[in-house]
Amino acid sequence: MTECQLSLADAVKLATDCLAANGADAPNAAATAENMVAAERDGCVSHGLFRLPAYVTSLRNGKLNPAADPKVSRLAPGVVRVDADNGMAPLAILRAHEALIPVAREQGIAAAALVDVMHMAALWPDVEPLAEAGLAALAVTASRSFVAPAGGARPLFGTNPMAFAWPRAGEPPMVFDQAVSVMARGEVMIAARDGHALPEGVGLDADGNPTTDPAAVLDGVLLPFGGYKGSAIALMIDMLAAGLIGQPFSPEIDRASNKDGGPEPGGMLIIAFDPDRFGDAAGWREHSEAFFAEMLTQDGVRLPGQRRHANRAVSERDGVRIPAELHAKIVELSGHS
Amino acid sequence: MTECQLSLADAVKLATDCLAANGADAPNAAATAENMVAAERDGCVSHGLFRLPAYVTSLRNGKLNPAADPKVSRLAPGVVRVDADNGMAPLAILRAHEALIPVAREQGIAAAALVDVMHMAALWPDVEPLAEAGLAALAVTASRSFVAPAGGARPLFGTNPMAFAWPRAGEPPMVFDQAVSVMARGEVMIAARDGHALPEGVGLDADGNPTTDPAAVLDGVLLPFGGYKGSAIALMIDMLAAGLIGQPFSPEIDRASNKDGGPEPGGMLIIAFDPDRFGDAAGWREHSEAFFAEMLTQDGVRLPGQRRHANRAVSERDGVRIPAELHAKIVELSGHS
Repeated sequence: MTECQLSLADAVKLATDCLAANGADAPNAAATAENMVAAERDGCVSHGLFRLPAYVTSLRNGKLNPAADPKVSRLAPGVVRVDADNGMAPLAILRAHEALIPVAREQGIAAAALVDVMHMAALWPDVEPLAEAGLAALAVTASRSFVAPAGGARPLFGTNPMAFAWPRAGEPPMVFDQAVSVMARGEVMIAARDGHALPEGVGLDADGNPTTDPAAVLDGVLLPFGGYKGSAIALMIDMLAAGLIGQPFSPEIDRASNKDGGPEPGGMLIIAFDPDRFGDAAGWREHSEAFFAEMLTQDGVRLPGQRRHANRAVSERDGVRIPAELHAKIVELSGHS
Repeated sequence: MTECQLSLADAVKLATDCLAANGADAPNAAATAENMVAAERDGCVSHGLFRLPAYVTSLRNGKLNPAADPKVSRLAPGVVRVDADNGMAPLAILRAHEALIPVAREQGIAAAALVDVMHMAALWPDVEPLAEAGLAALAVTASRSFVAPAGGARPLFGTNPMAFAWPRAGEPPMVFDQAVSVMARGEVMIAARDGHALPEGVGLDADGNPTTDPAAVLDGVLLPFGGYKGSAIALMIDMLAAGLIGQPFSPEIDRASNKDGGPEPGGMLIIAFDPDRFGDAAGWREHSEAFFAEMLTQDGVRLPGQRRHANRAVSERDGVRIPAELHAKIVELSGHS
């Protein structure tokens, strides 16, 4: 596959210009471009510039508010609400972080309920900055129905990702970001694009039969990781990102969708914890580092986020490589207005 | 296997008398007996009266504080602390619930950090009463190292259970309670006791080789559910139940343990959410019920907790059946003082 090499700054400019050429205002274009390039930089290709054409589709067909101006309000002492105004998630997330950080420090624990947010991005950027600010954070979001509940064979849950971040001293945060499906749908899409078969157990076809064909799984249903335990986590995420905050459950998102491949309006919950307020302000950093060090004494074990941060170091030096076909597509989409 | 049938009241009396005969004061004996019988009643045999002899062991050897008097304090507007005084968890949980419910209603979201708590019980009783009070709740706790991190072959994480509850109108709460191991260690203990082989993939022996022998797994290591995703959840739970609140991580619990089979001192975190404070006070109950109803249209799918609540209905009518050998053991242990 022919690839194009871009510096991170050039990649951000490419994506910003493309979004702006398709109607996004400057704050939204910048935030979303930075988000996609951060994913590309960290090796999360399925949430990188690969997603840009889908954002453009949804900007062009009017599903996305190109000039969304997310508004923050306070629902309770420990709860902030961010009305994302049907815009792309990254700008709403920036505003949520600005609002949530002081509230979490004040309350010890606090939550941000994001509503009417069009989320199609990796979830780790929604928690990593909170950990960089010294907070632990958990984020969840629902999405279109792609995953069967345990025992079932039809889509119900979204891939409902969960991300968790923990602050570290002198190191990037420990961060994981995982879908409730055995494999992220973005990875199945990449496999379909590249013609690779899936491992066993990733999904069922439209008739409910096991298959390793990514196209058949995209037409059928993904399976939850770990059987009924992953299914329970998917359910919890739907309750927190939809039921709790008055946003659509995964199948409601699915039914309302124009199925253009772009982001869908829905909810998101971010919970932030200030470890300085939970009884071990003096000790928690050193204590946690000792635990991580013990974990890493086992061969073959690594901290979540380590591979991503290693990719980041390389990308900051060398830039990112994207398929030439994708680069050409983005250039073409940028010419349209 | 010969079994004894007991009414729920008789089962509580049997357990209370046994704990009291071994030194537990009245509030601790009652709370722990009720907790074990609730598990037995709901069909959670591995957390039922099966655990009573281990409590007795730890009461007799002085590991447990038999007259623990858990103390509640407020660490931050959204954070309560319960110092469980090295007592059995159930009494500390009762006090945590009393403290947490009004704080969660006031703050929207709040957490209870339980410290020096000797937890060996099912986790669902730690969230179900919060949902009965109209709150959503999540609880996590760390425990002795029994589970390998993804990629490793030696114990690091505890079985680190997570329980989540969601309030329902006119129905018992939706509740799940699951260990991060493929199979709960209590179930592996039951399999060892009854001489049953385990399914593939539950654990490794002490040399790191796969085995279906429950005794070999108890000497070796359990595997996390869903591979690296379950491992990430185990890690998150250790961060929340230990790192965040200044309590021992799983391997620290393990090293400090006298390995008597009883509960170990450690931490626990309960997070409560008041759905009335998250923006959809008027709609969340009906909205959630519609989602549950849709979920249940799929054949073979059930809500977490439904089987347990069905068992409860039977037990409330017929009482519980426990192995005659266990009954005799409890009677014998009650004679000692």
